[in-house]
Amino acid sequence: MKAEILSTGDEIRTGALVDSNTALIAECLERQGVTVTRHQSVGDALEALTDVIVEISRRADLAVVTGGLGPTVDDRTMEAAARAAGVELILDAGALADMEQFFKKLGRPCSPSNRKQALVPQGGTCLPNPIGTAPGVRLSVHGCTFFFMPGVPAEMRRMLDEQVLPQIRAMQGRHRRFCLLRTISTFGLPESVVGEKVAAITERFPEITLGLRAKFPEIQVKLYLRTQDEPAGQKILAAADEWVTGILGGHVFSHNERPMAEEVGRLLLARNATLALAESCTGGLVANWITNAPGSSGYFLFSGVTYHNTAKIKVLGVSPQTLQEKGAVSEETARQMAEGARRVGDATYGLAITGIAGPDGGSDEKPVGTVCMALAAADGTIVKRHCFGFGQRLMNKRMFAMTALNMLRLKLTTASGPVQ
Amino acid sequence: MKAEILSTGDEIRTGALVDSNTALIAECLERQGVTVTRHQSVGDALEALTDVIVEISRRADLAVVTGGLGPTVDDRTMEAAARAAGVELILDAGALADMEQFFKKLGRPCSPSNRKQALVPQGGTCLPNPIGTAPGVRLSVHGCTFFFMPGVPAEMRRMLDEQVLPQIRAMQGRHRRFCLLRTISTFGLPESVVGEKVAAITERFPEITLGLRAKFPEIQVKLYLRTQDEPAGQKILAAADEWVTGILGGHVFSHNERPMAEEVGRLLLARNATLALAESCTGGLVANWITNAPGSSGYFLFSGVTYHNTAKIKVLGVSPQTLQEKGAVSEETARQMAEGARRVGDATYGLAITGIAGPDGGSDEKPVGTVCMALAAADGTIVKRHCFGFGQRLMNKRMFAMTALNMLRLKLTTASGPVQ
Repeated sequence: MKAEILSTGDEIRTGALVDSNTALIAECLERQGVTVTRHQSVGDALEALTDVIVEISRRADLAVVTGGLGPTVDDRTMEAAARAAGVELILDAGALADMEQFFKKLGRPCSPSNRKQALVPQGGTCLPNPIGTAPGVRLSVHGCTFFFMPGVPAEMRRMLDEQVLPQIRAMQGRHRRFCLLRTISTFGLPESVVGEKVAAITERFPEITLGLRAKFPEIQVKLYLRTQDEPAGQKILAAADEWVTGILGGHVFSHNERPMAEEVGRLLLARNATLALAESCTGGLVANWITNAPGSSGYFLFSGVTYHNTAKIKVLGVSPQTLQEKGAVSEETARQMAEGARRVGDATYGLAITGIAGPDGGSDEKPVGTVCMALAAADGTIVKRHCFGFGQRLMNKRMFAMTALNMLRLKLTTASGPVQ
Repeated sequence: MKAEILSTGDEIRTGALVDSNTALIAECLERQGVTVTRHQSVGDALEALTDVIVEISRRADLAVVTGGLGPTVDDRTMEAAARAAGVELILDAGALADMEQFFKKLGRPCSPSNRKQALVPQGGTCLPNPIGTAPGVRLSVHGCTFFFMPGVPAEMRRMLDEQVLPQIRAMQGRHRRFCLLRTISTFGLPESVVGEKVAAITERFPEITLGLRAKFPEIQVKLYLRTQDEPAGQKILAAADEWVTGILGGHVFSHNERPMAEEVGRLLLARNATLALAESCTGGLVANWITNAPGSSGYFLFSGVTYHNTAKIKVLGVSPQTLQEKGAVSEETARQMAEGARRVGDATYGLAITGIAGPDGGSDEKPVGTVCMALAAADGTIVKRHCFGFGQRLMNKRMFAMTALNMLRLKLTTASGPVQ
């Protein structure tokens, strides 16, 4: 089954808005075994909309369209669909009743412009929209089945999950193919090296298609498998995941797209351990990532974002002499910061980062990208120095933060064996 | 002049990658007065690529294409372009020399698969790529001018700015129209209220098209103006900006898309003032935003990310009695945190945030979304309590952080008059 995706609206056409709906729809369709052959975007002009609907109907079996179902004069997708199919727009009594109910709950009147949203091309079927006013519509145009949905991402997503994907599954019937996906997140190797190391997967597992994706600063290994037998496919994927993990070893940190900070949190929680941070150049980024996870108060206690040396001295107890003799970016300062954070926060682990994110502040001896980090624990403190060659401040902040979290992850997984 | 945009590659077709290049290209073309009529995406299949290039050549005067110029067998855009134009691929000696030079600098050999990147359709002109291996190509296909560029965003962006846009300006010649844009960033009013307040702009300034864009948690007012006379257009925009700013007053924080944290930094620097933070529920987000700006070490000293109460007591000197009697989320705790941060950091201002980001930790008295914030200065401490109704943790963190920064911005602009 061949599908196309169409997004509509002048905001998308002119680039004022990045269209994120299309990638999500494409991923869902492909996973379900539908091949997406083309995406398109046009504006709100009636003629352009009508033309593109007719064109798609000639090429595809299935089309998913977003946008242009709103109450304003700009919203003309239904009118274009009716023209393309050569039918009239008629008032859908059920859709109107749902809409009146929706406004009643909000305590607001249903205006004539809202009523327009219950106009549906003859032969079309409404798709309920429980969280908005515009219903979706399913309509056959010259033998191609179109699903029209609102452009508001939350409304679109719910309608896709609850209405469109199940209806497509029913169309696929027994011939349905699954496109299964496993994502293995890695850190610490360049994309080209990861690619070379796992290249032999296609010989070992010929059913699998390999994809690599750089999601800076991590590299994701994606394993795709198309099959009609889902349980058998999942078994192959699990074996392939094990094979990849065996080869990449400690560089693999997650098998389910869980972010590094959340994975570290999971490991801390499993060990009943707590964390305090001391951040200089990362400026709170590590603490922010850590606290993005719900429940992080169960293991995260404190971060001293000590940008200025005075704060390093007063809050973390770093020695003024060390700062003067070795500098703020030095192994010795990192060590004292980590030990200070651990002591002040009363935590199992103290993790510290001090470096030069740029664009200024570098020197011949310590160029932009230089970073020192330390991990303090009951059994002592580990200290590392790195120098990364990215020119950009925000890339450096991310790279420093991930490297420090990875240092803690490796400590947690090797110190007392991996916890699942 | 009518333009279309085409992005290519299986990663985009299958939704594994969100295509951000297209929106950027569309915005640049529209600003330059070129009307973008359609975007499309197809995968790496040669036939699909060739078909879509031929189709575009029949409809548009101009086309911008990204992706498929790499060294691997999947990269077939040049082959498809040659087929669509009915010409041969020939080796471009200049492009090959540039590429060999590029690899020489990297100290790596130029492989045969890289050499393939110097193959260009006959009649095409290479566009230099100073930061990558694949040159771009300009080629006329059935009277439509195509610009082919790499898909890597950084390489694409540089080639667009330095090569493609100037060449399109030359094509436009004297008939060039400008689409001018002014963005006014606001905070603190809902989108619908901002819309109502500025709706009369189209009567006052009939040349201007109004756009509103929610970039959570800020609302941007966008003023568009199409004209052939750029200086006159800029004057109208400046007058309209002044009118909008007069109406929205203190809710306007930036006229050039500068983020709130950077704007606050600019104000601090202009006053030779410094900042220390005390963050609980925002978990370092404010410090992270502040330190994303280069040069932030000129005004930012310290943030105590005191997630646990012990850290609030030990680092910021919050009274254990206050925590016990009033709770961590209270006006009194916020006040002591702000004053403690100011004292410990030895800063002009101390800004503190303590609240409940959710999903857990709420109560009837203090539901999720409750936040207390305080701003300590030489002339005393201001304390505020808010309750925001977002269900989501990450939205709450952003809203709390923006509200606190805005509190400091208002203090800085009203205390001693605005600094420009």
